[in-house]
Amino acid sequence: MAKRPEFDGVLTCPMPVGVHDRIVLGHGSGGKLSAELIEQIFLPAFNNSALNQLNDQAIVDFPGKQLAFTTDSFVVKPLFFPGGDIGSLAVHGTVNDLAMGGAQPLYMSAAFILEEGLEIETLRRVVQSLQRAAIEAGVTIVTGDTKVVEKGHGDGLFINTTGIGTVQRGLTLSADQGVPGDRVILSGPIGDHGIAILAQREGLEFETTIQSDSAPLHKLARAMLDAAPLGAIRCMRDPTRGGLSSTANEIAAKSRVGITLEESCIAVREEVRGACELLGLDPMYVANEGKLVAIVDPCVAGAVLAAMQQHVYGREARIIGTVTESNPGTVVMRTAFGTTRIVDMLPGDQLPRIC
Amino acid sequence: MAKRPEFDGVLTCPMPVGVHDRIVLGHGSGGKLSAELIEQIFLPAFNNSALNQLNDQAIVDFPGKQLAFTTDSFVVKPLFFPGGDIGSLAVHGTVNDLAMGGAQPLYMSAAFILEEGLEIETLRRVVQSLQRAAIEAGVTIVTGDTKVVEKGHGDGLFINTTGIGTVQRGLTLSADQGVPGDRVILSGPIGDHGIAILAQREGLEFETTIQSDSAPLHKLARAMLDAAPLGAIRCMRDPTRGGLSSTANEIAAKSRVGITLEESCIAVREEVRGACELLGLDPMYVANEGKLVAIVDPCVAGAVLAAMQQHVYGREARIIGTVTESNPGTVVMRTAFGTTRIVDMLPGDQLPRIC
Repeated sequence: MAKRPEFDGVLTCPMPVGVHDRIVLGHGSGGKLSAELIEQIFLPAFNNSALNQLNDQAIVDFPGKQLAFTTDSFVVKPLFFPGGDIGSLAVHGTVNDLAMGGAQPLYMSAAFILEEGLEIETLRRVVQSLQRAAIEAGVTIVTGDTKVVEKGHGDGLFINTTGIGTVQRGLTLSADQGVPGDRVILSGPIGDHGIAILAQREGLEFETTIQSDSAPLHKLARAMLDAAPLGAIRCMRDPTRGGLSSTANEIAAKSRVGITLEESCIAVREEVRGACELLGLDPMYVANEGKLVAIVDPCVAGAVLAAMQQHVYGREARIIGTVTESNPGTVVMRTAFGTTRIVDMLPGDQLPRIC
Repeated sequence: MAKRPEFDGVLTCPMPVGVHDRIVLGHGSGGKLSAELIEQIFLPAFNNSALNQLNDQAIVDFPGKQLAFTTDSFVVKPLFFPGGDIGSLAVHGTVNDLAMGGAQPLYMSAAFILEEGLEIETLRRVVQSLQRAAIEAGVTIVTGDTKVVEKGHGDGLFINTTGIGTVQRGLTLSADQGVPGDRVILSGPIGDHGIAILAQREGLEFETTIQSDSAPLHKLARAMLDAAPLGAIRCMRDPTRGGLSSTANEIAAKSRVGITLEESCIAVREEVRGACELLGLDPMYVANEGKLVAIVDPCVAGAVLAAMQQHVYGREARIIGTVTESNPGTVVMRTAFGTTRIVDMLPGDQLPRIC
């Protein structure tokens, strides 16, 4: 067999460091360029002792017995939008999924799939935004990963964040726990996130810029749980993809109950309503990233609502409906005109790549 | 302002279920098609009580005080290769990252970024393989996510898996703990995974098919830890992207020690060596997915090696080198001819999309 060719010359040649202003395939190689990217972009932003070890895994203390665990990939387009960007969204989305289980978010991983050619400055902005959002939410990014795909085989930047939190024993929030008579509480106006993204994507201009509502909801959720005895809040959900209609339908289906919503109680900002009319969209199906829906025992609904309204992300909270025994699995909207209509789950895709 | 158009007709029209044989954007919408995908593909495969709740987060018991946490995205191309596929790889990669920290893997998340047009049958095969690998590794997939991107903005299928394990208190395996005199142990021949992928990708034919070594290493790691007193195994790493050279360099750099490797002790299968010659690759830089490197106190290196050789994934384990005081941060290879050469970290990318 032929003698192995000599690659030492190639493999040890000095690679100029710090000269790249765009992602190249080598940034995903696990070699020097990967190390550079980690040292120059990720470590300065996320700086903490668990991550800085740069082992293949983070070892952290876990204070509880019950662990909440959630994962989300983010493919939102464009990467930056009024009210946020893919970095802050990747934190809020995962923090909120933990919060909806009543968990205190603790740790998060961040995994990036980069497309060859992405500007490194873009990555840096996203990473810094992600870190700012993590600090605001009180979570620590303790482990991460970066992969690079060839130009045309990705789309700039995808992020996966996976979150861990601790949940007190005995606390169970689940979509199958709704009981007839329960109240449906919504934390604020709907449709802001989806319309902010779409307006940005389509280059639409409105009188006022529509901002995404992207926000961390764990403190709001905590305030609600503190305002009610254990078990009185049956379920919390953040109506993201598929909007409020999908969330309400899921709860109705899993709890085998009906849900009647009052259209006049569901707030939609004037500019969002206008954009929806223009675009032919129903705000009930538009994504939110800083709202929550709760199904609450009627005896404590008032107290929970009051607690919400004292919180920055719940000021506009309202009771928007009731859980019913009739029409199990169905969501009915009572309109301002007194008529009713069925609010079905979104059959296909209303707005792709909204998160 | 104009009256809101009526969409009810559209939004509630019955969508034929189960007719799609390819992924459409609606599968990522959070609506009915998303629910179908979950019910028809993910739940039947991953079936477990935490996941089946289909809440936004899984709530699971966590038995320890110390938690290991790791994330990895998988963009391997092609999706199926001799010895594995992106599904099994996504389990092994994450299990191994936990195992290298001495952790017992417990739970895993699985998040999919699908490209519009992907055959649903392909997704089903990957998901089933992922589940088989999870069962073999003793981990439970308790939470997940699916996003869909437009055709041409992804590449079939990317997977992120994030893993959680428990680590006994006092056990710290870290790349900065190498001490001069320590032995370097490698669990078997190198280069199988990278060459298996590349041969498949390039349509190369060899006399025997080169199989990926993709395998879960947590039981091998456990056997090693059981064979040595606490602290005697300084570090374990799986030499994936960047190969053995990158792993050895990382340990040398972080421990501020030199590492001398004996070329004659590093096994490379004959067909892998042949393929490397043909392709102009050095197996030291080629990825492995079922091998580990350990830095071990010389007093127990023999016992650890013996324990490894009794394990299916460590039968061909050997001591391949020594940690030295001289040349800190440098890896030196002593060749079969008695000469030495420096083994540098891979400067750029040798093989993109290998994992």
